[in-house]
Amino acid sequence: MLDDKNPKRTSLEQLGEFGLINHLTKDFTLQHKSSIKGIGDDAAVIDFKDKKTVISTDLLIEGVHFDLSYVPLKHLGYKAVMVNLSDIYAMNATATQITVSIAVSNRFPLEALEELYSGIALAAKTYNVDLVGGDTTSSTKGMLISITAIGQANEEDLVYRNGAKPNDLLVVTGDLGAAYMGLQVLEREKEVFKVNPNNNPDLSMYTYIVERQLKPEARKDIVPLLNALEVKPTSMIDVSDGLSSEILHLCEQSNVGCNLYEDKIPLDPTVISSCEEFKVNSTTVALGGGEDYELLFTIDQKEFPKIKGNPNLTVVGHMTDKNEGVHLISRNNTKIPITAQGWNSLSEEQ
Amino acid sequence: MLDDKNPKRTSLEQLGEFGLINHLTKDFTLQHKSSIKGIGDDAAVIDFKDKKTVISTDLLIEGVHFDLSYVPLKHLGYKAVMVNLSDIYAMNATATQITVSIAVSNRFPLEALEELYSGIALAAKTYNVDLVGGDTTSSTKGMLISITAIGQANEEDLVYRNGAKPNDLLVVTGDLGAAYMGLQVLEREKEVFKVNPNNNPDLSMYTYIVERQLKPEARKDIVPLLNALEVKPTSMIDVSDGLSSEILHLCEQSNVGCNLYEDKIPLDPTVISSCEEFKVNSTTVALGGGEDYELLFTIDQKEFPKIKGNPNLTVVGHMTDKNEGVHLISRNNTKIPITAQGWNSLSEEQ
Repeated sequence: MLDDKNPKRTSLEQLGEFGLINHLTKDFTLQHKSSIKGIGDDAAVIDFKDKKTVISTDLLIEGVHFDLSYVPLKHLGYKAVMVNLSDIYAMNATATQITVSIAVSNRFPLEALEELYSGIALAAKTYNVDLVGGDTTSSTKGMLISITAIGQANEEDLVYRNGAKPNDLLVVTGDLGAAYMGLQVLEREKEVFKVNPNNNPDLSMYTYIVERQLKPEARKDIVPLLNALEVKPTSMIDVSDGLSSEILHLCEQSNVGCNLYEDKIPLDPTVISSCEEFKVNSTTVALGGGEDYELLFTIDQKEFPKIKGNPNLTVVGHMTDKNEGVHLISRNNTKIPITAQGWNSLSEEQ
Repeated sequence: MLDDKNPKRTSLEQLGEFGLINHLTKDFTLQHKSSIKGIGDDAAVIDFKDKKTVISTDLLIEGVHFDLSYVPLKHLGYKAVMVNLSDIYAMNATATQITVSIAVSNRFPLEALEELYSGIALAAKTYNVDLVGGDTTSSTKGMLISITAIGQANEEDLVYRNGAKPNDLLVVTGDLGAAYMGLQVLEREKEVFKVNPNNNPDLSMYTYIVERQLKPEARKDIVPLLNALEVKPTSMIDVSDGLSSEILHLCEQSNVGCNLYEDKIPLDPTVISSCEEFKVNSTTVALGGGEDYELLFTIDQKEFPKIKGNPNLTVVGHMTDKNEGVHLISRNNTKIPITAQGWNSLSEEQ
């Protein structure tokens, strides 16, 4: 339903591999002084002087991570960058460069890749990162995107997953579950579309959750916010697989337990109403949904006054001794063990 | 014919995504002081102090870049690392870290990925690079490998593609065309195998060229060699797509022309004999074959005495003014324009 109706199709073979890279990247300019050499040599060169280099990489595969029947290519390009930048911000670092590799089958014309790159360009501009390298090749089936994000930080600012202590507060940015509910809406519309291709769905009431799915924003703002508040988290992770999975990562690596309070989990009203409509439990969605790209972190209790009342930050629980385990404290005050309900890419496979 | 006969098959679903990463990477230890944080957080952290960071990335896709019917998985893992390290050495830099992302369909059991990672581990150990990150996910079809290599260099040591000057000598390491001829042998044996699966081929006379195809070695030795000889190339590139394609890159980016002498192109005797057997022109193979992973560079003429007689280095031509064009000077002294006959991944597509 969101397909590109543009009839222009330029075959990739006409351009060749190097022609294609040059064509797709010709409007990307280097903004960072640290980007010494970008695309066009054997490797990119980056100069971080006395700062640390932070590197993260992700693969996105058609049919596994995205469905082009409802994801516009421009949004896909944007989201692919977000997924990676989110990891850099979760280190309390600044993202500065990306490399983008794509493989496509010959069912994609040049115009499709231009759409994809327009989304990558928008993300790069909005988030102030330079495209400095990549690879473009053919695939035997479908599209895949591999992005490596590079960032920098002072050593003393870096935040790992392993620094949480018992009694630390557990804090999450923004709200949770919206991307998952947006996906439910899109998948439902796809089924309707299969039956009646002329159906023109009104998705306006779902704008927030559909946008959270199609065009998520990484929390670039949180690193400077915490810096301004003079709060350094003791541990941090981004919420890509669902809150429960991320809490378990922090607990395992920090060797602590956790109590998460169900009534504290931040949910947008659209998430609550769509959960009612789809007859799913909103807590289950927040815990297992994934793709929120919010940041989850722990802070010492004495830092609480600094973050109290900030609309971006919600305290959702506290860390405990490891032997107390990892639990959800439900609204009716029962303790439910948290297990990884995060999206597991390998078991999702058909 | 080179299939793994091991009947043990552990389904990837049993492990899950994080279990799989942990399992495959548990024996990788960090060797470099610069590798501050490896696998297990949102991103890796690297400390290059006052050196420059060098980054390169490549995608390898089953059915496009490799054929598992004759490439053992261990060799594939090794080669995937080589392809990337070669790019770092082509910057006259030292490779220090890699990230490895893989996507596999559920036809691959855990044991297959262990084989792949044993090759990656061997390459990492032999070339002294740390595995510091990656991503593991499912694909809808086949296997793909995305590797990012990270290296370091002093700013004054970096060599780009754009520094060649007219009259500079064009130098290549090792010999050319062997990987391509090895592929011809393997593809012929695959066809024989289809007809008679019990045929046990004797490939001993092709050992060198088959090894060059299946288990290439990146020229890690050349960077310290040039340093010891006190030669800094004016431009450099690695030979991944074939000599002609690489010469054209150097000429285009350096704004020069080139005369390449056919009788100087270094060829192993096995390449010459297999070219006769397969009735192909050995110069065509060297120019267009690709996957040699040798280094091609230019030096000022006054440096010639320093490299003269070195068995690793062959002067194959010299650069000219741009308006003289890019030519092969054939054995019978005719000038033949060089065009990109390098393997073009997009037009190769079926």
